[in-house]
Amino acid sequence: MKKTVANIQSILIADLPETFVTRRIPEVSLEFGGIRGDRHFGLTSKADSRQPMYPRGTEILNRRQITMVSEEELGQIAKELGIEQVLPEWLGANLLVKGFMELTKLTLGSRILFPNGAGLICMGENMPCTLPGEEIQKHYADHEKLATRFVKAGYKRRGIVCAVERPGIIHELDEVQILINDYTNPMQ
Amino acid sequence: MKKTVANIQSILIADLPETFVTRRIPEVSLEFGGIRGDRHFGLTSKADSRQPMYPRGTEILNRRQITMVSEEELGQIAKELGIEQVLPEWLGANLLVKGFMELTKLTLGSRILFPNGAGLICMGENMPCTLPGEEIQKHYADHEKLATRFVKAGYKRRGIVCAVERPGIIHELDEVQILINDYTNPMQ
Repeated sequence: MKKTVANIQSILIADLPETFVTRRIPEVSLEFGGIRGDRHFGLTSKADSRQPMYPRGTEILNRRQITMVSEEELGQIAKELGIEQVLPEWLGANLLVKGFMELTKLTLGSRILFPNGAGLICMGENMPCTLPGEEIQKHYADHEKLATRFVKAGYKRRGIVCAVERPGIIHELDEVQILINDYTNPMQ
Repeated sequence: MKKTVANIQSILIADLPETFVTRRIPEVSLEFGGIRGDRHFGLTSKADSRQPMYPRGTEILNRRQITMVSEEELGQIAKELGIEQVLPEWLGANLLVKGFMELTKLTLGSRILFPNGAGLICMGENMPCTLPGEEIQKHYADHEKLATRFVKAGYKRRGIVCAVERPGIIHELDEVQILINDYTNPMQ
């Protein structure tokens, strides 16, 4: 197991019924199930196109409680799209981290530990879809085909999905420890 | 993603307060949290020596709801220990599978799907400890040091831990589909 540290630049919540876009909040209490009031909150969720092994709409365990992106990878996406910036809000992300390269490659079972004791467990890569690209397109009307180009630009840069392993309050600018799960010698 | 099939030889429950040893039952209803009445049932559990990043006893997400071993790997353990057999009961396993080689190497995020619709998600390798070895020793009093030798013999053969992703009734002799998660192109 390798350890590293990084910083939480922003905490965000998707609590507006009409959109997946998130908005920044300075702190939040992580509960089992995620962030109360967020559209992905819950110990269970409905199966969608990401879980084709179950009928759509089936109640399944929710591993997509919290989504996390990195400033570095968003910068790479923006560069590839030829635009100034890609904000975490537009991807519906809940956490923006800085200082951890290749967040999207973080292995399943890795931990993200907060100073107050809260812990997230990485449940894998977040699969790109076209919705964030459509949101990005709204902000750059003078650019073409950003919605479809986002899927490719976001490949392996789209961040991760996490479940809350241990509840607790987290704050903007928290320094987090990242414990990287090593498959050849895995953690539980 | 690769697919394969295997058979559930036995379903077992640890419902006796004085021991982790399991006993066979012909069928069971898998719920979110595992098998009701089993000592590992629950959406949350207490952190133990397997989660050294949290204070012991802290309430955390339970990824060890169901433990699974394979007939083939138990056979290898028995052979290495020089004994006739190692029963899943002695390891406190909940499911005994047959026909899937190298169960212990099954990747995190892989699915085990039952005919009735229930689904498990693999949460990683089960780490060997000495308790099952002590149980094995009781059954082979004429053999020496089985408790400590079990740890080595069980290395990478000790099976996996799972969480219930979708509830449902499962039966002895069910044929299960195994969807193997591929880290280079992971599923959600």
